[in-house]
Amino acid sequence: MTEKQNSVDAEETAAPARPTLRLRQPSERAPTKSSVCSRSYFVVVMVFFHIYIINVIALLLYVHYNNGEAGDSGRDHEAPSSNPRLAESHRPPSKSEFLRDVSLTRLEGIRVGHVQKVSLVPDKVHKMRTLSMKPLLFEIPNFLSEDECRVVMQLAQLKGLMESQLMVQDGQEELAKELNLSPEEIFNLLDINKDGQLQMHEILTHSRVRDGIWLTPENLREIYAGLQADKDANGLLSLEEFKLLSNDAFQRFLFQRGVKSSQLVRNSRHTWLYQGRGAHQVLQDIKTRVTRLTRLPSSIVDLSEPLQVVRYEEGGHYHAHHDSGPVYPETACTHTRLAANASTPFETSCRYITVLFYLNSVEGGGETAFPVADNRTYDEVSLIQNDVDLMDTRRNCDKSNLRVKPTKGTAVFWYNYLSDGRGWVGEQDEYALHGGCMVTRGTKWVANKWINIDPDYQRQAQYQHLVSQQLDDEDDEGLTLNPDLHHSDIHQDL
Amino acid sequence: MTEKQNSVDAEETAAPARPTLRLRQPSERAPTKSSVCSRSYFVVVMVFFHIYIINVIALLLYVHYNNGEAGDSGRDHEAPSSNPRLAESHRPPSKSEFLRDVSLTRLEGIRVGHVQKVSLVPDKVHKMRTLSMKPLLFEIPNFLSEDECRVVMQLAQLKGLMESQLMVQDGQEELAKELNLSPEEIFNLLDINKDGQLQMHEILTHSRVRDGIWLTPENLREIYAGLQADKDANGLLSLEEFKLLSNDAFQRFLFQRGVKSSQLVRNSRHTWLYQGRGAHQVLQDIKTRVTRLTRLPSSIVDLSEPLQVVRYEEGGHYHAHHDSGPVYPETACTHTRLAANASTPFETSCRYITVLFYLNSVEGGGETAFPVADNRTYDEVSLIQNDVDLMDTRRNCDKSNLRVKPTKGTAVFWYNYLSDGRGWVGEQDEYALHGGCMVTRGTKWVANKWINIDPDYQRQAQYQHLVSQQLDDEDDEGLTLNPDLHHSDIHQDL
Repeated sequence: MTEKQNSVDAEETAAPARPTLRLRQPSERAPTKSSVCSRSYFVVVMVFFHIYIINVIALLLYVHYNNGEAGDSGRDHEAPSSNPRLAESHRPPSKSEFLRDVSLTRLEGIRVGHVQKVSLVPDKVHKMRTLSMKPLLFEIPNFLSEDECRVVMQLAQLKGLMESQLMVQDGQEELAKELNLSPEEIFNLLDINKDGQLQMHEILTHSRVRDGIWLTPENLREIYAGLQADKDANGLLSLEEFKLLSNDAFQRFLFQRGVKSSQLVRNSRHTWLYQGRGAHQVLQDIKTRVTRLTRLPSSIVDLSEPLQVVRYEEGGHYHAHHDSGPVYPETACTHTRLAANASTPFETSCRYITVLFYLNSVEGGGETAFPVADNRTYDEVSLIQNDVDLMDTRRNCDKSNLRVKPTKGTAVFWYNYLSDGRGWVGEQDEYALHGGCMVTRGTKWVANKWINIDPDYQRQAQYQHLVSQQLDDEDDEGLTLNPDLHHSDIHQDL
Repeated sequence: MTEKQNSVDAEETAAPARPTLRLRQPSERAPTKSSVCSRSYFVVVMVFFHIYIINVIALLLYVHYNNGEAGDSGRDHEAPSSNPRLAESHRPPSKSEFLRDVSLTRLEGIRVGHVQKVSLVPDKVHKMRTLSMKPLLFEIPNFLSEDECRVVMQLAQLKGLMESQLMVQDGQEELAKELNLSPEEIFNLLDINKDGQLQMHEILTHSRVRDGIWLTPENLREIYAGLQADKDANGLLSLEEFKLLSNDAFQRFLFQRGVKSSQLVRNSRHTWLYQGRGAHQVLQDIKTRVTRLTRLPSSIVDLSEPLQVVRYEEGGHYHAHHDSGPVYPETACTHTRLAANASTPFETSCRYITVLFYLNSVEGGGETAFPVADNRTYDEVSLIQNDVDLMDTRRNCDKSNLRVKPTKGTAVFWYNYLSDGRGWVGEQDEYALHGGCMVTRGTKWVANKWINIDPDYQRQAQYQHLVSQQLDDEDDEGLTLNPDLHHSDIHQDL
């Protein structure tokens, strides 16, 4: 999107090239001395010379600026804070721009421990440290001031926080009916290693994506005992044993026994804060700073989800998860779905980047854990082995490859998707798996800023085009604009 | 270097802006009707309008091209084969260019297994697969044709191959004297874990950088026994035991017993083939293809080491090593040392990239092993543990994280240095450790193309400037050039 805006600049700068065609006419009439010799003709000529010089200077500046930009990312280690391309703009881009090639900036991690300086606010330099390469993950201390942290927490409290996860008892049964699978088929799907028996970790791996209840090996043994599911008590379910269970037997058992919030995937309260025009200045500032940090076009950051503020009480947690799912050709993004007019069976939030702010320093626990960061390989199945479930942030955070301690004002951010190698969003980065460790003492406040980008470039472009048109319509209604205003501006310049 | 050439283009294109100043003079004399009305004046005006239009078009094309380039790396997955910036050029760059910011292209790996198409020769698309991210390592099947492989092997045989490593018996003693260290000091340097005793792996880790003999734990036990070094036979050397040994006791013992070539760090024969003007077309073609593959300025590739051709006989090997060493402020690069006029205590070859070509398919063994590729962490000491030496390519290739099978015509290439985050060469990538596994059947032929770049940008610039001046002097001597030739070209264009 950045490059797109560039091209517009270039075209606008070059626009006065057209009027030169008008000058051809006098040149054709050259033999008529009077027209060539007239004082007005001379004035017109001189005006065009000046335009010409300004034009060349503008283009040279643009070229220079463009080159400087390439070096910026960066020979001087600075975020393009003085970058006019990142300036807020709500002008509707023309349709043809969407057909252009566009490159999203992706920061360089270099290696774990590498520190680069970034300029995000005037008169201050932040240090950004690479925490991992897989996912590409950075930490920036003092990204938010103490005051900003306080304001965000207060605004969230003012708005009111709601339970992040509700216990939904139905839906599962219906899904099973919809899928219309026989018990044998379900058994085969669950039996990952194809040994004709269901190991506990096979059940657990599956339960992650199934419902909001977090099963532990102990839970499972309890369920087996309660349902008398494992007749031969070998810890495995055979097809015969499995067939005797109804589709939602596990869930019904758990609900009858009662589910505590600590047994859910997440145990927190949250709210959303709008960051657009009219929002509290602190919220707008944060958005601007995120735009500078990520070096993405402001149009994309502007159209992303609002700021999510989350509060974890003592005992709160969020088991390891992906902020955004894998994207297949038949997957739609939540934010572009309507604009793209796509009817696809799958949907995900397409959160290219997660920026996580720590709004307070937690007294005990509450680290952000990345269980498989920088692992050589990623294997979903091996995440649960020998009763150790690496995704369980209430128990096994100490076994995570990487843990970030919550410190007031610090921001961490990572890419949930890889590059596609062509300057756009590519495949999901499975290594971006992360969770919030259990808070052992005190309360934990964090905020999340997600930057949503559709890995399908055309869909993102279409979405932005549509939204900008809408914004433009609103502008037109709100103001009584002279339709000639833009043109008269040009005349004045001449 | 790429950006540098761009900027020159931009300046040249904009050069005609200057003559407009001359036109100001008639404008000052505007009241004199005759000068304004003259036909010649009109012609001049029209000429400048045409220049103006051409100028704007040229600049727009440049801007478009520049943007396209950013997307190229790449929206269309193509190497810039049609990129005029990569065209061979022996024009001496002006001094001022070296002060400019320059960005080296570094290919994107995306993730292990990612495949991108590259265009290296006309009418053919190669597939480049990412083999590892640490080091950034790619494989390109059929990079060389069967004929090209044959020609390179024949040229090498014609030139004659020499032993890659000679057994040097002296030098070690002198070095020890020069360093002027007491036995206690040496003991402390060797005692990595500071437990007051020398474990075998501490001796072995040290011996890697010490001399060309490859010690195995068995060797070491043999030496201990032969020298009666380990009096208490606990497999450890205490300071007292260590003090009784002379500095070169181990080496002298080994030489007295006789060293076989299989006990050396490398066991192969090699030669160097010049690839510049006048060289065999196949060698020049390979160089051009490497330039396109790496997307580095041809001036850098041109000034790199010649092609090294290596032959391993049955039983040949090359234990794990780095092609180029770490770079500290006091380290000089071999290729820029003279030009930089630096007197520094350390020197390394500054091989930014290694391109390794397999000239034949080996019948048995001979894989290229990367023991720690994509490891989460790098720890030199843990490379040797429990009698398993991961750097030993005669024994432990099977325990390497990555092994590349030699296939005729395939090229692999990797970066021995990280990026500095500012478009230049940064720190050494320790994960680039690699070796040639023992050839168990047949002969193995490979070629190495190293691309040398000084991590100190100014030193590289100075070196290139010096060499280009020399080339220019040679050109001037060889040709009788009309000094006005370049200027007259410009006049003709007008």
